[in-house]
Formats: sequence, structure tokens, C-alpha cells
Amino acid sequence: MTEELDLLIEGKIYSNGEIVEAYLGVVDGKVAGIWISGTFKYREKRALESKEVALPGMMDIHVHMRGLEQSYKEDWFSGTEAALRGGVTAILDMPNNKPWIRDENTLMRKMEEAKNMALVDYGFYLGVPRSAGELDKVKDFVVGIKIYPDEISDYLDPILQRAKELGLFRIFHAEVEGDEVKGIRTVMKFIEKYGGHITHVSSAEGVRLLLSAKSQGIEVSMDTCPHYIWLTERDIDWRGYVRPRIKSSMDMTVIKSSVKSCLFDAISTDHAPHTEEEKKGGATGIPGLETALPLLFTSVYKGEFPLKAIDLYSRNPADIFGVKKGCFLPGNDADIVIYDYSDRRKIRGSDFSSKAKFTPFEGFEVVGRVSSVYIRGVLALDEGDLKVSRGFGKPIVRGKSFHFE
Amino acid sequence: MTEELDLLIEGKIYSNGEIVEAYLGVVDGKVAGIWISGTFKYREKRALESKEVALPGMMDIHVHMRGLEQSYKEDWFSGTEAALRGGVTAILDMPNNKPWIRDENTLMRKMEEAKNMALVDYGFYLGVPRSAGELDKVKDFVVGIKIYPDEISDYLDPILQRAKELGLFRIFHAEVEGDEVKGIRTVMKFIEKYGGHITHVSSAEGVRLLLSAKSQGIEVSMDTCPHYIWLTERDIDWRGYVRPRIKSSMDMTVIKSSVKSCLFDAISTDHAPHTEEEKKGGATGIPGLETALPLLFTSVYKGEFPLKAIDLYSRNPADIFGVKKGCFLPGNDADIVIYDYSDRRKIRGSDFSSKAKFTPFEGFEVVGRVSSVYIRGVLALDEGDLKVSRGFGKPIVRGKSFHFE
Repeated sequence: MTEELDLLIEGKIYSNGEIVEAYLGVVDGKVAGIWISGTFKYREKRALESKEVALPGMMDIHVHMRGLEQSYKEDWFSGTEAALRGGVTAILDMPNNKPWIRDENTLMRKMEEAKNMALVDYGFYLGVPRSAGELDKVKDFVVGIKIYPDEISDYLDPILQRAKELGLFRIFHAEVEGDEVKGIRTVMKFIEKYGGHITHVSSAEGVRLLLSAKSQGIEVSMDTCPHYIWLTERDIDWRGYVRPRIKSSMDMTVIKSSVKSCLFDAISTDHAPHTEEEKKGGATGIPGLETALPLLFTSVYKGEFPLKAIDLYSRNPADIFGVKKGCFLPGNDADIVIYDYSDRRKIRGSDFSSKAKFTPFEGFEVVGRVSSVYIRGVLALDEGDLKVSRGFGKPIVRGKSFHFE
Repeated sequence: MTEELDLLIEGKIYSNGEIVEAYLGVVDGKVAGIWISGTFKYREKRALESKEVALPGMMDIHVHMRGLEQSYKEDWFSGTEAALRGGVTAILDMPNNKPWIRDENTLMRKMEEAKNMALVDYGFYLGVPRSAGELDKVKDFVVGIKIYPDEISDYLDPILQRAKELGLFRIFHAEVEGDEVKGIRTVMKFIEKYGGHITHVSSAEGVRLLLSAKSQGIEVSMDTCPHYIWLTERDIDWRGYVRPRIKSSMDMTVIKSSVKSCLFDAISTDHAPHTEEEKKGGATGIPGLETALPLLFTSVYKGEFPLKAIDLYSRNPADIFGVKKGCFLPGNDADIVIYDYSDRRKIRGSDFSSKAKFTPFEGFEVVGRVSSVYIRGVLALDEGDLKVSRGFGKPIVRGKSFHFE
């Protein structure tokens, strides 16, 4: 290969659920390929340390960047800095802002903030709009719609129908009166008709219902979050209040085992920052972007999860949304996380870049840290130093995956 | 990359659940890498046609090559020719031969036949031996042990224990009195203790039980076969008799949907040839090696399955056994199937290379065919012509996948 590369990374590379010693090449911001050996021409080379591994950039399909009137909780700069430091190079942001994002005009306000402030790539969900027609106006700017528990009514039918026709993702928070199982049973009536995704699944019975639905051919996918994988209700205090609530050790066992067996389609964080005062006052939601990958990596490192579990937070989300990221396939965006696993450390909320400097994982020991991150081939984080400035993040592009003509 | 390649393939390449236009390089029988563009030095180049795609060689973890006293049904030449023509470059062979393979001496006889006759790479399961000690003698020559329904007894405990210690796979045929659900409940007592795999899962309730077991953290994996994915009891005559029997359309829906959602760990064929006379006389078992990939490809082509379903018959089996095959990861064996999807054709048992020239899929229309196959970088099948001779196939090597030190 005599073409000149912009960047050549030599060392341990994660691909196809394995780690191999190889070369990863980047040209024009895209993955050029992975190669086992040879002599390359390149403008820049990075030889990884023996305890560094190149992972694809993670993609988080459920985050709350806040901003607008809630910028005191988090804004598009602090939130995406948290993402970057967590090895997350693409995020999908929820619409429950103040004001709620249900129409084109409000969406434009949020898009403007993201455009000016984001450090990583991003997409938006629209809230349930007043009419299906609103979807046509915003279809090029959103990846899907988010449906909250109190929005479940027959009113949704034409909206879900139109969303499906437009290729917009339908993602549900499934809880009724705090009961996830009731919530799933309720939203399944819509998912059976239009297909959809249930986010932050937290209970053993929820997993059982959804695996059953999948095996019956219903077009449903699901994700869970780190706080359901590694925490039980006995492990938490005010820092762990979240909806759905963190449940029993039996529930955690099923969630964790289902991640291990890759029965989930994805992991997301539901990164949802508040001030410490709000949080202590009972606000639900916890920041997660800076802890998800270290926690996941640690379970993989210890052999609790197979290597391919990394896909749940990278390749799979990208695959679900048809985004050319998430794995080192030639032609994909060169989003690369250099993960340094040379030491162990304790998670400290006070270290966060998120404005929310608390975490239910406070004091948890994890293996390693994100040392550097490339986004679209550009070094965005270098040994912990920010190398790009606000506005570097771009809207994600949903390209169709390959189809036979 | 200035190194000289032995082979360069240019065109549509399957990797990471996607198909990309790229270059696939081969050096010394191994995958050198996949690259998006550039100028390569190579000894031989193959530019794929517009309706050809390079897939990894398939790996079938459940076949019956027969041989020994049953060579009239199939032998290691005819059976591996069937594999090769079906795009299957590695097979794992069952021990219910005549004589049954339960000890080192009988195994050696079979190994000799395979060594002299095989066209594709292979591994063996041992039958349940008389004592656990037998496992130590054969551990380097077998990939695991196969447990049949009438062998389920407490006698198994020390054998399964030792198999687990030696890293030998425990694969179960789970049926009691023709009842798969009873069978699964029975073998789960052992799998809960030692872990294991249930092969040819055929029923909706079987899938439900096994998904539940997985989500509870039990170390269990499972595969199903093409005849449970695409056939119901109403579709078959004498050609479709098999154990477990092909079941209702409700069962088929669940099996098929679970393949679509990649809830199975693998697809296998349970390729089990008989003479037509035996078959008409009620012998159970059907040949499958020449139809599995075309059927799977057809469902992927039509969009019934996602592209990544290809992994179920390639990357996943290789991953389960720690074999460096099954995907185009640098350093893996260069097992490459050139699949030509330019036309449709009907499956005809009379076209088979297997000695068993019947199939329950007789007359099924499939998209395309395996046109060429490379094994370890060597062109073994070229536009339908055999290019290697008996004995080309080699024992598979189970290399450890990457582990963090």
C-alpha cells in the first residue's frame, strides 16, 4: 500500500471482537484499514505502549446534554467534554430539555448550541410532536423520537407510523407508575405495530419479556445502563436515584448476564446531570459518560465479559443507527480511543468534566483510563489534554448500510 | 504497505457485519488485512465481479462425516467436498461412527481417514469415554465431547468436570423420549455445573428455556440448524426426518426470529448423510453442508436477516472454539468464500457432492452460489472446479484468543 497515510497506529487493535497486534491506518479522517505487517508511508505514527489498546470510539445512544435553560446542570461543552474523556465520540441527545424539544423552532435553538459548543459528534431525538407532520420538517435533523411514559396513548399511532416511514428511530422509556414490567407491556402494543427500542431496561422480568418478544419476531431492540449492570439497590445512596430505579441483586444478575451473553443490543449511559443540591433534593438521573467505558473495560479485562462486549457500546449502536462509526471497518470515521490499562484507579466524581461531579460508582476501582481520542482522524484528546475546541463536534450522518441491489 | 502479497482480492468484502468495497490481502496463508484503497504489490490479484462478495469461510460445528464402516453413507472425501462446495472451510465431526469413537485407538483410525481424505480443515468430538482419564490421552486431538440423550447419567460428572478442566467443549443433544424440552431440563443439571452447549435447538420452548438460562448467568450456548429455520413439519416428507424432529410453524417462527436477532450463538447443519434406501426406511438425519450458506445468504439478501447473521455460521463458531478463522481479522487463516449472487437457482439434491443426494430443501429457490473457495490462502475450489486433492484439509488449531496479561 504505497498511498501516504495521515496517521498510522501500531500496536494492539480491537476488531471483530478480538485484539490483534497490527497497524491501523487513517486517511482523510477515515479508517483506511487494519494490516498485519509491512512498510507504510505516513505523515504521523503512533506506536502504542505495551499496555495500550486502540478501541473504536464509543457511541452513546441515550444522553442528556441539557443546555438551554438547564445549562447550569450541563451544557454542550461540559457534556461533550465528559463524553470525550470517557472515550465516547458520538452521542444521541434526549429532548426533555427546558423548553421541551417537540418542534422545529426549539430544535433549531438546541442545534445552534450543539453546533457552537460540542466536542464530539452528536444527534438528536425529537420529543413527541403535536402532529406527525412536524416529523417531516425535522427528519433531516433528528435520528428519531423519544416517547416518555406519560405520553403513551392512541394519539401516538400516526406519529409512530410516520416516524417509521421516515426511518426515524422510536425509542421508549417503558415505565408505568414506576413499574417497568407494566411499562413494557404497555409500549409493546405500539412496538408490535411499528417496531421500536426500549431504553435503560433495568429488571429481570423486563429482559425476559423483551427476549420473548424478540424471539417471536417482534421488531424490538433494547439497551441497559452501567448502573443496572454493576449496582443494586443496596449499593446506592442519593447519588444512585434514577428512573427506572436500580433494583435487586437478582435483577442485576440478569442484566449483567444478559450483557455478558450479548443479548442486549446496546449499552447506553442515560447520562443525566443535575446539581448536587438538586440531586440531594431527590432529582433522578446520574452522569455516566466518564465511567461507562472504564467500567465495561474493567469487566472485559477481568474476563467477566467477553472481549466482544465492547461492541455493545460501539459497533452495535453505530449499526442500529446506520452510522459509519463504531468499528475499524475501512471507510468508517476514524474515531479511535487509546485506552491505557497500565494501572488501576478509583472513580472519583470530583474528577469529572461533567458539571455533575457525583456518581453512584464513587470509589469503584477500575482498570485503566482513556488516554487519547481521535475523532474523524483528528487528535481531540491527547494524554488528557483537550486538543480541539468547542464546535469541533459534527452532526452524525446516517448512511444506509450496504444493500444488495 | 510495500510488502508483497500472495493474493489481493478487490471488491465487496464482508467484515464486521457489513459489506464494503475494499482490498483483502493474503500473505503466507493468513489474512494480511483489509484496506480501502492504495497501490499494492502482489503476486496474484482477483478482481471480484459486481455481483460477487468475499465472505469468510464458514465453520460448521456439527457434522457427521461418517467414514470407517459407514463410508458407504459418506466418507471424508465426499463429505469435505460437500463442505467445500458449500463454502464451509472448517468442520467439527461427531463421534457416533461405527465403531463409536470413545477412545484413543478408534479416534486414531478416524484421524487417519481424515488426514488422508479431507479437503477442508477439521476437528473431532470424542464420544463419552469410559473414564475421565481417556480425555487426557486425546485432549490434543479433539475439540470436545458429544453427549447423546441416552448417556445422561451421574456417570457423566467426573467426565464433564475433566473436560472442562482440559478446555474441551461439552456439546449436548438434548432430547428425552423425543421431547426437547424434557431433554433441555435434564441436561441443564449438568450444564449448570460444568457449562456446555446445546446443539440443534428446534423448539420455541427450547429457545425460551435457554435464553432464560443465559440471562441467569448459566454458561450455556446454543445453535440451531437450517431445517429448523426454514422448514415446518408440514413442509417435509421422508427427506425431512431428523432428530430432533422438525416442528410447527410456531416453533419455526421462534427459531427464525431468534436467528434474525442473533440470539443463537451459532448455526450448524447436523449434516448426517444416509443412503436413499436407508432414508426411505426411516433413518433420521439429512445432508446440509451444500445448502446452509446459500439458504442463509438468501435470507440476508432478501433482508429477512441482517447482514451480520453471516457471523452465526462463521465468526461465532470460530470465536466459540478459539480458532483463528471465521472473519477477516489480520493474522487469521485466509479462508475466503467468493459468493456469486448474480442469479437464482433451485436446490437439487442430485447436484450434491455428498453421497446423500436428497434434501428437504429440494426445489427451494436460493440466490447465488459458492463460486470459489480459498483455504489458508490456497485456491481450493475455482468456479466449481476442485483445485486441491484429498488430504489438503488440516486439523484446526485452537489458539487462545487474546488475554490481558
